Amino acid sequence: MQDAQRIIDTAHEMADAARQAILPHFRDRNLAADNKRPADFDPVTVADRAAEKAMREVLSRRCPDDSVFGEEYGLSEGRSGLTWILDPIDGTRAFICGATSWGVLIGLKDSDSIRYGMVDQPYIGERFEGGLGISRFTGPSGQKPLAVRQGVELGQATLLTTFPEIGTPDEGEAFGHVANRVRLTRYGLDCYAYALLALGQVDLVIEAGLQPYDIAGPLAVVEAAGGIVTDWQGGSAASGGQVIAAASELLHRQALELLNA
Amino acid sequence: MQDAQRIIDTAHEMADAARQAILPHFRDRNLAADNKRPADFDPVTVADRAAEKAMREVLSRRCPDDSVFGEEYGLSEGRSGLTWILDPIDGTRAFICGATSWGVLIGLKDSDSIRYGMVDQPYIGERFEGGLGISRFTGPSGQKPLAVRQGVELGQATLLTTFPEIGTPDEGEAFGHVANRVRLTRYGLDCYAYALLALGQVDLVIEAGLQPYDIAGPLAVVEAAGGIVTDWQGGSAASGGQVIAAASELLHRQALELLNA
Repeated sequence: MQDAQRIIDTAHEMADAARQAILPHFRDRNLAADNKRPADFDPVTVADRAAEKAMREVLSRRCPDDSVFGEEYGLSEGRSGLTWILDPIDGTRAFICGATSWGVLIGLKDSDSIRYGMVDQPYIGERFEGGLGISRFTGPSGQKPLAVRQGVELGQATLLTTFPEIGTPDEGEAFGHVANRVRLTRYGLDCYAYALLALGQVDLVIEAGLQPYDIAGPLAVVEAAGGIVTDWQGGSAASGGQVIAAASELLHRQALELLNA
Repeated sequence: MQDAQRIIDTAHEMADAARQAILPHFRDRNLAADNKRPADFDPVTVADRAAEKAMREVLSRRCPDDSVFGEEYGLSEGRSGLTWILDPIDGTRAFICGATSWGVLIGLKDSDSIRYGMVDQPYIGERFEGGLGISRFTGPSGQKPLAVRQGVELGQATLLTTFPEIGTPDEGEAFGHVANRVRLTRYGLDCYAYALLALGQVDLVIEAGLQPYDIAGPLAVVEAAGGIVTDWQGGSAASGGQVIAAASELLHRQALELLNA
């Protein structure tokens, strides 16, 4: 693997470039949303495309041998064995509402697993990153380490999700088995849910219908903060689909049992 | 009525005091939430109480003859005929998750109606206000007028809500009649939903189970921005309960018909 600091610096340069590409469009009254999937509503905007292009430009200059897999422009094969996984705006539905739960997601994968990830919220000015030895939050008032919270029981736990907007009815019903047991469930958080888990603010995130680029960055951030991220069968979450992220092994096991009951 | 500028200055001083009282507690890992309504989960924290106290301190100094009605400390009767209606943290459930959709709500009512209101988001640093001749957003990059957007048809509209967390099952079903007809529904936005409507980012907000202090500030902000706020029967929304806010008369009428179908 390349030098860790060089990878981290590249990710920050990409996120800075994405911020510059996106912010002029955020809350722009003339922003139009195209629909990628007419059956429901999967919007994409000029901001998504501009941000992915800006990040790819950084990569083509700094790491031309790495592969790139992005939501808007697909796979560009490299030969280094490393793949950058990009979601220029995760939560485009939040973005087009002017809400702030969207983020720029960056993940870096080698042949084995995801090694580093970032969740960036340009409007608030928050950056969550993890992997390659770091676990760090950078916000308006400085930096601090990310760390999940421990010792919260299921009945006192807080659960975040993007249900009922995503997932099938069966998945929604399984989700409900957990939602009925926790103290508080909050909706519509997009990638920001994983950031709040890594910040130690909440205990569980459960979603379905994810793509690999929706989870690569958040997965690395949560794992570096001490959390657990898997699919609903306890296997790797790197392919997306049904994903659970938990602050502790106990909560993870209890929630998996309820999801599969 | 007192001089408008004096009222507006008082509201800003109150919101500044609330910010100072709240921000040290936001995302504090030691923050405890008491439950005011054990049947579900209606949390209150030291931050809610400190913020209302801080705002009442400003009022007792600047406007000792005005009445005050606040979520945490109830009604203090004055004799000026003006009542300040305060929700120190609307969206305490968001607050204890570390999310940013909560806000400080301030409304000012005379014997007839609500004359001025404010929605303040201390962490992002955003202030939305309306009434007494102003309609204004102040954010990290400056000020601009608030204005709802016009001309969006129901099938292309965006609807925000705090369902399914609040409201009865019957109310949730009525809400669903509208949600099924719009292009996009987003959940869990708390008072920030009204702010986004006033910013021209979304078209409808529909909620139920509100208290008067949940809606006084947002109502004035949305009306000053050109929107319409009523209960589900088209009457005054100032008492809370079932509330609809719309960007245009046409959307308001169409949504009311669906809610009462």
